[in-house]
Amino acid sequence: MAFLSDIEIAQQAAMEPIVDVAKKLDIDADDLELYGKYKAKVSFDLWEKVKDNKDGKLILVTAITPTPAGEGKTTTSVGLAQALAKLGKKVTLALREPSLGPVFGVKGGAAGGGYSQVVPMEDINIHFTGDFHAITSAHNLLAAMLDNSIQQGNLLNIDPRRIVFKRVLDMNDRALRNIVIGLGGKPDGVPRQDGFDITVASEIMAILCLSQGIEDLKERLSKIIVAYTYDDKPVTAKELEAQGAMAMLLKDAIKPNLVQTLEHVPAFIHGGPFANIAHGCNSVMATKYGLKLADYFVTEAGFAADLGAEKFLDIKCRLAGLKPNAVVIVATIRALKMHGGVAKEDLGKVNMAALEAGIPNLEKHVENMLSFGLPVVVALNAFPTDTEEELKFIQEKCAKLGVPVVESDIWAKGGEGGIKMAEEVIKACDKENSFHYLYDEKLSPKEKIETIATKIYGADGVVFTDKAEKDLKKIHDLGKDGLLICMAKTQASISDDASKKGRPTGFKLTVREVRLSAGAGFIIPITGAIMTMPGLPKRPAACNIDVDAQGKVSGLF
Amino acid sequence: MAFLSDIEIAQQAAMEPIVDVAKKLDIDADDLELYGKYKAKVSFDLWEKVKDNKDGKLILVTAITPTPAGEGKTTTSVGLAQALAKLGKKVTLALREPSLGPVFGVKGGAAGGGYSQVVPMEDINIHFTGDFHAITSAHNLLAAMLDNSIQQGNLLNIDPRRIVFKRVLDMNDRALRNIVIGLGGKPDGVPRQDGFDITVASEIMAILCLSQGIEDLKERLSKIIVAYTYDDKPVTAKELEAQGAMAMLLKDAIKPNLVQTLEHVPAFIHGGPFANIAHGCNSVMATKYGLKLADYFVTEAGFAADLGAEKFLDIKCRLAGLKPNAVVIVATIRALKMHGGVAKEDLGKVNMAALEAGIPNLEKHVENMLSFGLPVVVALNAFPTDTEEELKFIQEKCAKLGVPVVESDIWAKGGEGGIKMAEEVIKACDKENSFHYLYDEKLSPKEKIETIATKIYGADGVVFTDKAEKDLKKIHDLGKDGLLICMAKTQASISDDASKKGRPTGFKLTVREVRLSAGAGFIIPITGAIMTMPGLPKRPAACNIDVDAQGKVSGLF
Repeated sequence: MAFLSDIEIAQQAAMEPIVDVAKKLDIDADDLELYGKYKAKVSFDLWEKVKDNKDGKLILVTAITPTPAGEGKTTTSVGLAQALAKLGKKVTLALREPSLGPVFGVKGGAAGGGYSQVVPMEDINIHFTGDFHAITSAHNLLAAMLDNSIQQGNLLNIDPRRIVFKRVLDMNDRALRNIVIGLGGKPDGVPRQDGFDITVASEIMAILCLSQGIEDLKERLSKIIVAYTYDDKPVTAKELEAQGAMAMLLKDAIKPNLVQTLEHVPAFIHGGPFANIAHGCNSVMATKYGLKLADYFVTEAGFAADLGAEKFLDIKCRLAGLKPNAVVIVATIRALKMHGGVAKEDLGKVNMAALEAGIPNLEKHVENMLSFGLPVVVALNAFPTDTEEELKFIQEKCAKLGVPVVESDIWAKGGEGGIKMAEEVIKACDKENSFHYLYDEKLSPKEKIETIATKIYGADGVVFTDKAEKDLKKIHDLGKDGLLICMAKTQASISDDASKKGRPTGFKLTVREVRLSAGAGFIIPITGAIMTMPGLPKRPAACNIDVDAQGKVSGLF
Repeated sequence: MAFLSDIEIAQQAAMEPIVDVAKKLDIDADDLELYGKYKAKVSFDLWEKVKDNKDGKLILVTAITPTPAGEGKTTTSVGLAQALAKLGKKVTLALREPSLGPVFGVKGGAAGGGYSQVVPMEDINIHFTGDFHAITSAHNLLAAMLDNSIQQGNLLNIDPRRIVFKRVLDMNDRALRNIVIGLGGKPDGVPRQDGFDITVASEIMAILCLSQGIEDLKERLSKIIVAYTYDDKPVTAKELEAQGAMAMLLKDAIKPNLVQTLEHVPAFIHGGPFANIAHGCNSVMATKYGLKLADYFVTEAGFAADLGAEKFLDIKCRLAGLKPNAVVIVATIRALKMHGGVAKEDLGKVNMAALEAGIPNLEKHVENMLSFGLPVVVALNAFPTDTEEELKFIQEKCAKLGVPVVESDIWAKGGEGGIKMAEEVIKACDKENSFHYLYDEKLSPKEKIETIATKIYGADGVVFTDKAEKDLKKIHDLGKDGLLICMAKTQASISDDASKKGRPTGFKLTVREVRLSAGAGFIIPITGAIMTMPGLPKRPAACNIDVDAQGKVSGLF
């Protein structure tokens, strides 16, 4: 079989009309707001009809620490849902929406791969149903109202040196990271330093994904702290009277989007916050709909289990009252060898020493997930170079932790390649579990951070810089100690040092500063440089993208 | 009858499903791409089916010089289409899409008023089908690729002091008018002066509205001049290899949007370029569809007849090969009295002297439209304070020019209030006409500008500043003398002096600089300060906007 690219596979797919896909979840056509034939939003009315349904099984897909070898977390999520459907289960899944900016940079889309993708793939990766554009608009409206308030007499006494709310664009545009605005004289605003983040880094993205309806959304929006006054008081979106107009801009964006997988399994794609300065999960609303509409519900969290899964379990589950039934940890033999120190070009060779050196990364993530009281399944995404010997070694290691390992081939075979994995997941879901959060939210922020660092990352302790101490004092004075912790840490290591692969030990986590997302409800300890506005590479992927006279896209991936 | 606000009237309307509305134009449901139940884009396939149809009658709605009294051009366009439908005609109309930014400032929407509106009104005024967001993305992608090219070795030899392509946002945000970007050190770009315009001022907006398909779109995008090199050569989007990715972002935005009027007349709402630095008309594609699908097709142009109608006739009709059948000039007795020097608070009183002093404004616009060889109907938008005496006076004046005057009451009565107007328009359309462009495109840019200034504005001549002379020399050197003229002039006067009401005489037009929109195909003489990024007022309209738990919007207008 000749290999096709992801976009070729996606474009060859015969999609079912979304109204037919929705019927598999007993969603009536009247409860859909169509965006063309293959995309829809679900209406507010649907919730009233389904809210008393029994929840389906909640399956979280997470992964080992990412390497350039790739793991295939989204592909596995899609493949698992397809496999569950092949086993006759009523199933749906929920994923994050891809960000537009990176499409033009180096990376591809975030819609799965091979025969485990969600479609229509180009639409999902470009404007989709406009959610991110709505977030960009709502964010920049608040920013414009903030600068306007300063310009028009500054009645709120805002200190232009202490503005903590940047602007956003869904574009990789490094030249906008650090800018000076308000130049040009009196009619053109008050000069000050500013900058743009990419839209997925917007606090409004995190808020949209955590909101359970428009009233909740407005409440959260109104709490966003945008600046401090000359006498050190926080200035919120509410004081700028912005939350109503912002919520209006988001009134459709808050409704979950329904599409399908290549095998016509209904899939929600909704929201996409960063997994470092935000919680990295799709929307609570999509998750709640998914649980009410299906018997098995698959979802994923950003980055590895130390970041995405911890936040999913401690933040999203807590805020939305969710109880997971199983965790799938995705790994590849190749990636584990990279954790053991092998270079990417040598991954095709059997190297048991490297595998042995790398497997502690998987073990640590497994232990962490077990520590939440949840059943775990390890899913090995198969590559042609994998050997029986390597597979057996991993199975033995995981058996010691009491965790099953299954190989899946969902990239090449779709759902059929994930049947064994799905069977193990069903078994895991049938187990009783003792799910609990990692930390008590009543602990002090420092205690909460220390718990995550020592229990999840394996650190010996936490060092708080002077700046971090000062930030925490400020948070305390604002009465926000009770908020949850959203760690901003490198995704390339379980520690805060990106170069440490495998299972780092003997380190202390350094918290350099602590930010506050009062609307989202997070305290964000920053443990390293966090890039919130990417740049384009020397030759951007955009240069290869084209569209023909009939609207067919090429060069996208 | 108690007066309802525009949004109350719009929200009370029982809309027909857009698939039913489309049937009135014999559009099959398969040729629609739905955006919810009441909005749709028409597919590319439809064009193949209708392109050989006979064109319907093309009716252009324009107006006298705007005053704070208001004229109701869009309301009249909608009302006229509704009246034609009441007379049993197969009719559609095409309007511009409103800009999002101003919704949060002082002004209301651009979707008509009273019982002559297009609906769903909130959607049309907010994100609609995402066209403007797509334009914002395509524009800012090109800007990011430009700065990236400078950052990554500047192989194109771009002079950062000579960049002529700003960024855009669909937001009233004065603080972004004049900015410095690329600060922060080497990884964060090359520092340079920059600024943001509002999206409707983007050259890409003008390009989208003039393109007749994706190939044409790509061709125009590739010609955009973004900067000049150190050795004075233009740098285009093509050299940045951006046109394919930009066109991909616009592949759906280029398809016309179909909605309905309050009386269920099919209405295209598509594109919305500025009427000063651009041509101020809805898209060529919507216009062409409208002409092929209906027997009567109503459209409007921005600002008064000296700007919008001149550009419609000289630019849009020429580029798209359109032949209009009639021009409707909208006026009000109140506005004519303002042109005669009456203050807004005194407009309720009969003042024949003021009317006599103001009516030359209408006469000049009528003469101008007749000079294009087109039949003209003057439509007086009725107000309760109008008197028989005033109406009769205007009728006598217009009779001397051989032009009928009709009062219409389409704001309060919908189509029923415009029957007489519609009958006059039908009569006008039945006349033979001798339509011709104002100037020959082979004339030099100076000659073209002088023709518009003397014939349309009534100027005694044109003064070109040194800067303008230099700009024209540059345009000549680039081989662009053959492009059409798109005048950027105040809309508040037929002259270039906003304070001169009525019919100014004895003045010379001053051209201060001349810009080039090589992609759109315009030479843009600038005759005054043109605001391309509005600001918010002391208390923005956004402060009053809200949305309830069911998604119902309030405070929008």
